[in-house]
Amino acid sequence: MYSGKLTIFAEGTFILNKKKIINDPVYGFITIPSELVYDLIDHPYFQRLRNIKQLGMTHLVYPGAVHTRFHHALGAMHLMSMAIETLKGKGHEITEEEEEAVVIAILLHDIGHGPYSHALENTIVSGISHEDISILLMNSLNEKFGNKLDLAIQIFKGSYNKPFLHQLVSGQLDTDRMDYLNRDSFFTGVSEGIIGFDRIIKMLNVFNGHLVVEEKGIYSIEKFLVARRIMYWQVYLHKTAVAAEHLLVKILRRAKELSNKGVHLFATPSFNHFLVNTISKDEFITDPIHIRNFTCLDDHDIFTSVKVWATGDDQILSRLCRYLLTRSLYKIEVSPEPFDPKRVESLGERAVDVLNIESKDVGYFVFTDTITNHAYKVDDESINILMKNGTTRDITLASDNAILEGLSKTVKKHILCYTKELNNLK
Amino acid sequence: MYSGKLTIFAEGTFILNKKKIINDPVYGFITIPSELVYDLIDHPYFQRLRNIKQLGMTHLVYPGAVHTRFHHALGAMHLMSMAIETLKGKGHEITEEEEEAVVIAILLHDIGHGPYSHALENTIVSGISHEDISILLMNSLNEKFGNKLDLAIQIFKGSYNKPFLHQLVSGQLDTDRMDYLNRDSFFTGVSEGIIGFDRIIKMLNVFNGHLVVEEKGIYSIEKFLVARRIMYWQVYLHKTAVAAEHLLVKILRRAKELSNKGVHLFATPSFNHFLVNTISKDEFITDPIHIRNFTCLDDHDIFTSVKVWATGDDQILSRLCRYLLTRSLYKIEVSPEPFDPKRVESLGERAVDVLNIESKDVGYFVFTDTITNHAYKVDDESINILMKNGTTRDITLASDNAILEGLSKTVKKHILCYTKELNNLK
Amino acid sequence: MYSGKLTIFAEGTFILNKKKIINDPVYGFITIPSELVYDLIDHPYFQRLRNIKQLGMTHLVYPGAVHTRFHHALGAMHLMSMAIETLKGKGHEITEEEEEAVVIAILLHDIGHGPYSHALENTIVSGISHEDISILLMNSLNEKFGNKLDLAIQIFKGSYNKPFLHQLVSGQLDTDRMDYLNRDSFFTGVSEGIIGFDRIIKMLNVFNGHLVVEEKGIYSIEKFLVARRIMYWQVYLHKTAVAAEHLLVKILRRAKELSNKGVHLFATPSFNHFLVNTISKDEFITDPIHIRNFTCLDDHDIFTSVKVWATGDDQILSRLCRYLLTRSLYKIEVSPEPFDPKRVESLGERAVDVLNIESKDVGYFVFTDTITNHAYKVDDESINILMKNGTTRDITLASDNAILEGLSKTVKKHILCYTKELNNLK
Amino acid sequence: MYSGKLTIFAEGTFILNKKKIINDPVYGFITIPSELVYDLIDHPYFQRLRNIKQLGMTHLVYPGAVHTRFHHALGAMHLMSMAIETLKGKGHEITEEEEEAVVIAILLHDIGHGPYSHALENTIVSGISHEDISILLMNSLNEKFGNKLDLAIQIFKGSYNKPFLHQLVSGQLDTDRMDYLNRDSFFTGVSEGIIGFDRIIKMLNVFNGHLVVEEKGIYSIEKFLVARRIMYWQVYLHKTAVAAEHLLVKILRRAKELSNKGVHLFATPSFNHFLVNTISKDEFITDPIHIRNFTCLDDHDIFTSVKVWATGDDQILSRLCRYLLTRSLYKIEVSPEPFDPKRVESLGERAVDVLNIESKDVGYFVFTDTITNHAYKVDDESINILMKNGTTRDITLASDNAILEGLSKTVKKHILCYTKELNNLK
Repeated sequence: MYSGKLTIFAEGTFILNKKKIINDPVYGFITIPSELVYDLIDHPYFQRLRNIKQLGMTHLVYPGAVHTRFHHALGAMHLMSMAIETLKGKGHEITEEEEEAVVIAILLHDIGHGPYSHALENTIVSGISHEDISILLMNSLNEKFGNKLDLAIQIFKGSYNKPFLHQLVSGQLDTDRMDYLNRDSFFTGVSEGIIGFDRIIKMLNVFNGHLVVEEKGIYSIEKFLVARRIMYWQVYLHKTAVAAEHLLVKILRRAKELSNKGVHLFATPSFNHFLVNTISKDEFITDPIHIRNFTCLDDHDIFTSVKVWATGDDQILSRLCRYLLTRSLYKIEVSPEPFDPKRVESLGERAVDVLNIESKDVGYFVFTDTITNHAYKVDDESINILMKNGTTRDITLASDNAILEGLSKTVKKHILCYTKELNNLK
Repeated sequence: MYSGKLTIFAEGTFILNKKKIINDPVYGFITIPSELVYDLIDHPYFQRLRNIKQLGMTHLVYPGAVHTRFHHALGAMHLMSMAIETLKGKGHEITEEEEEAVVIAILLHDIGHGPYSHALENTIVSGISHEDISILLMNSLNEKFGNKLDLAIQIFKGSYNKPFLHQLVSGQLDTDRMDYLNRDSFFTGVSEGIIGFDRIIKMLNVFNGHLVVEEKGIYSIEKFLVARRIMYWQVYLHKTAVAAEHLLVKILRRAKELSNKGVHLFATPSFNHFLVNTISKDEFITDPIHIRNFTCLDDHDIFTSVKVWATGDDQILSRLCRYLLTRSLYKIEVSPEPFDPKRVESLGERAVDVLNIESKDVGYFVFTDTITNHAYKVDDESINILMKNGTTRDITLASDNAILEGLSKTVKKHILCYTKELNNLK
Repeated sequence: MYSGKLTIFAEGTFILNKKKIINDPVYGFITIPSELVYDLIDHPYFQRLRNIKQLGMTHLVYPGAVHTRFHHALGAMHLMSMAIETLKGKGHEITEEEEEAVVIAILLHDIGHGPYSHALENTIVSGISHEDISILLMNSLNEKFGNKLDLAIQIFKGSYNKPFLHQLVSGQLDTDRMDYLNRDSFFTGVSEGIIGFDRIIKMLNVFNGHLVVEEKGIYSIEKFLVARRIMYWQVYLHKTAVAAEHLLVKILRRAKELSNKGVHLFATPSFNHFLVNTISKDEFITDPIHIRNFTCLDDHDIFTSVKVWATGDDQILSRLCRYLLTRSLYKIEVSPEPFDPKRVESLGERAVDVLNIESKDVGYFVFTDTITNHAYKVDDESINILMKNGTTRDITLASDNAILEGLSKTVKKHILCYTKELNNLK
Repeated sequence: MYSGKLTIFAEGTFILNKKKIINDPVYGFITIPSELVYDLIDHPYFQRLRNIKQLGMTHLVYPGAVHTRFHHALGAMHLMSMAIETLKGKGHEITEEEEEAVVIAILLHDIGHGPYSHALENTIVSGISHEDISILLMNSLNEKFGNKLDLAIQIFKGSYNKPFLHQLVSGQLDTDRMDYLNRDSFFTGVSEGIIGFDRIIKMLNVFNGHLVVEEKGIYSIEKFLVARRIMYWQVYLHKTAVAAEHLLVKILRRAKELSNKGVHLFATPSFNHFLVNTISKDEFITDPIHIRNFTCLDDHDIFTSVKVWATGDDQILSRLCRYLLTRSLYKIEVSPEPFDPKRVESLGERAVDVLNIESKDVGYFVFTDTITNHAYKVDDESINILMKNGTTRDITLASDNAILEGLSKTVKKHILCYTKELNNLK
């Protein structure tokens, strides 16, 4: 059984209702549309997402941002149901099988995410991307569910002959993005990220098999892209959140380094599996022991280790962990231009002195990186507007001014991070 | 430094603003009113609350309910500032020192909570209540902060000579309750719990040193009490949440039992401290090692152990942990009358057979309990209404009908829990 | 054409969409489900409701409460569509014809309302109730639309053999009440009136042909009834709003009295028709000239006359109108007991003196009345709960405490009104 | 006395509270900060705004948009109080007298508006702008209130030596704009117009006496400007609303033309005053009879006349009025280029034929016009950003991309209107 909300309907001798509904503060109620979808949600692979925060360390900046990938996936599924209903209402044929498949595709689109995903992928689970793992898990579920996920997987991969279904799962106006903007806005309290998702969905249409937006919806799309841009700079790439994530990367890298050398570190068995083994993509795919351990990992495994490591013997690891626990995050500077290498080098030298570390370990305390963002990409997955005269054109051409042109430019920023002990030495 | 939201103001050479603000999806923005309050928030004792969910296992029913005790404490502080401003606006003298003190009192009112507090208090940290620990931690902070918390502690304990300040911290209309109803409603999505907190606060007044509500606010209070009642039955005492909490109690009890026997179980050092030691209240108070370990505990410690224990050797512990992880929670029956002991006994006998356990361990799989709730207590902490003629009276007397009478009755329900394997055997 | 929102879809040579949608701040979007419904909305009888405020004079207290009967009717229609979809989803057969009919029934349920309806019905249009006029207008529309409203009218009158459809239009849980609580709450800003309409609707079911609520929805109903009670005392029977309405009654009564005597008063032709003629119910029904004039009336007609009359010759009428325009409303006292007739008489005598009026006109300046409210009526239209064991019972019996008992009591209050000039003379 | 919300506090012998509050669905509660402000709100000049819709005919498109100029002025006052509190909190000296003055300045900023202001100004009250009348009425109030408005008027006119106060009343980030975007968004239900006003206000600061926005608020400003742009195209310049307003202009122009010829038309005395007289700005200012009549006008006067005129003798006037009442508005075409004069002429010729009118009256049925909008003007009132390094720069230079450049371009569109009878003749 899935949850109290659900068991209520199955209880007793008199069945009141077979529809399953879940309370969602963002949309009110989410309906689970079929038994198969229900069973997929109930599977441990999916339930695991309950313990993985959608925004990783961002709650250090926005305390409300502790919502989970579980909730996001349900929300995206809800929007998908709305989108499909709209398109059917406009006369486009979508079979029941296709409808269930596209709902499953969006439900599972992020199932390969691990805890603090971006940090993890760059460190201890580095041979394989979360996208690869998503496919792996979908295939595994497909096997368990008697190939009922065939169509969902086709749609997910973009190989099904109705491209608009794939675009709803993964495109510049997909229900993934719509939900995460809504949801991240809601839980952070950053009202600038609110989008008119109901209006956008009502303006969706299909033209030559591809997703389009009716001309009347053009301002809502503009607003959607601006909201996305704002959420990037105000939330996803917020300096403090970026600093915290970089710190976690360094912690995991150091732990891996130590484990490789044979140092024993406190960890759950599953987390330990990835600390002591270095696994190639091929190995990951072929030996089920890796996926078995991966699907046991969640935020709890990482964070308990960080807490224990903070009092451990390795000076570098314990120092980095204490930084995170006391939120003495890296000082982070942002600039449109690359930083002067001499300054970086000089900071590194001071780090060796002040922190009493070896030169080879300077990278744990002083480093540069870049962050980039574009709100809108002009490419083959662009957003097309269905004009009143029946033609379509890219939104940057359909709109009446330069806003969208601005949004389609890539913004790249350089960052310089160094520990706070060096703060007054710069 | 506390968070990115805050650091922004301290950065650079040109100080823009010394006011600290935090985004809150419930109230928009929360302002941190003073340096001392800021430093208390920044202290590890308080930061620990970031990793303790306000509603424990309730997110199994309401996926959005992953908000933390950290956020709740900030929210209650925000409402306290509003309440104080209102009372000052009505001409009541409240000094700056008192204002800071009452804000600190509410900020720290829950600081003694451990992870999954109710489960913990009944099992591995059983010698001492979270209220005791709150006082202990406040005293400890008072020491660290040069006795600046003296007045806050007096107000918290109710020994200060302006009783209304204590009532705002802990009473039937305190800002704790107002925030948790608002916040739990917001994050669960149960709109029935919404209260008109801004109106209630604007209707507060002081009469003979005690908190009163102006007559015009009577319906808002009625609504507040009904909302509280609804939240109890719909959220706090939701059958599934109750079943999950009971399951966690049994898990922790079994782990303690095994640890007492010398069985080694996976745990972080701090969690292990409480598994292997049985600590009296006196010991807890006198030896700082206990508080040091306690203040390292959070939800992560408990949940990682449950995950690891699920594959452990002890059949009972591993079975209980698997129940929780797969949400195969106890079947729970609710009744206004006690359950027939024969039926309970007979269920127990079947459990022995079906689960292949010993009689002495039946209580892990079959048991009864009671849950009670009253929305409003008529006692010396009752809600008094300030009538237009200048007299006060208890709200149950001031209101024009029987609703409040109903709300002041205690509702007691009996529950019977048993594992799902016995479901079709009843 | 109905509106810009709508015309967009019909424009151009390439038809994008035949669905009509209307922005609604309360529900987001309202969809017009069929061409017939569209045409009814477009009819002048219905469009007239655009210029009739739902809450009459209440905006004098709550400045946001200027929303119209037009908007309310659309909102109730929206909730009806949701309710029907829910019931169909639970397997109850509802034909397309029935669905359209019940939607039309709720859309037109208030079509007989005039401007400031309660004031009007007690004065210049006194021979006939707004319910009678609703039926009259529905029959007239039925004629114009080739008897396509036959079924809607049957449902409205309660003579169709599926009683639950009538109950959705007119019962203790009808979509009329649900919308007006939502809408009046939204526009007044009185958050205490917010109801969990989406949850209530999802909990609706049909049992033996009658509307029932599933047991799980019991707290939402409780909350609904409490919200309704609060809205009555806080908004609908707010002293100031009641005083304003009584004043308008007196104004219209005086105007009618003068017109009967042959005095000419400024008025639009349609308003004048009702000032100079006294029309019986029979005449109203048989001679179409009356309905023709009635359907031209809206708030504008009444208020412009009040403005002009305020500077007119009749001392009583001009004084009353000035009271309204400057919101020098009656002083109103409320009491659970009847007022002492001697005090009323004495106030009247003072009025004669102070205002220099004749004794026979005292009733314009001093009078008593009663206001009553019950949130819930226990009768044959009661709210029945569908218990998990498959039986039904009245909500007052199904709930676990005395709240609902309290709500089902009628509350009656006495009021005494007198002009402010007498204020310091009481 | 102002309203029930307020009288509650003054009633009885025991004064509970002297603070006056008003429910507002947009902000919760609005507090009236002083007795003088209270008395100004209570004055008939201001109360008149209760009967003037903020968005004129726009409710034909968005049925919720019936909110009034009265409510907007109160909302703008509320935001002003918040802004002043923020600036004072940042250490800028603002005296109590200045605070009251700037609050009064924003409260009265629109007091000169007549009903359907833009239509009116172009027709029957054409000698003088609503800005001129605002000043006239402020001066008149200043006289009545013993020159207590001196400072408010200085701030309003921009002659006071703290320019930031004037900028808060009238600038690119004034509280007028902030409130109307919030309020119009709220009541229309167009969520794209929502702005983060609380964040913007918290980011305001003063630099060299001028209003600036702290760098951290840059994205909120971007969003504000985009929201404003969207509201323009989606609401304020919505084709249907524009068509309705143009129709009203033509109606009033025809009525004036007929009145000038001596034709008697139904009208209230005050409306009639402006129909039969043509008043120069000088006459308006010098002879108080004009302002006396003007301040009696509201939406009711205009709309009752339209209703009566629809059945009058003049074929053109009655036809235009019927168009409006049945919302058979002009067909409106929009184009970036001017329309071909030949096509316009040819439409005019057909109008003469089809509608049986004289050539000189063609302009009532076929005409062209332009609409323009720029979200942001780069000029001396531009929005300046206070950078972290302590310098300021225009927002278009401070932002990192081309969005704002886009927003600062003027968008001009040509429209062609013609009556629907010509629709199939184009």
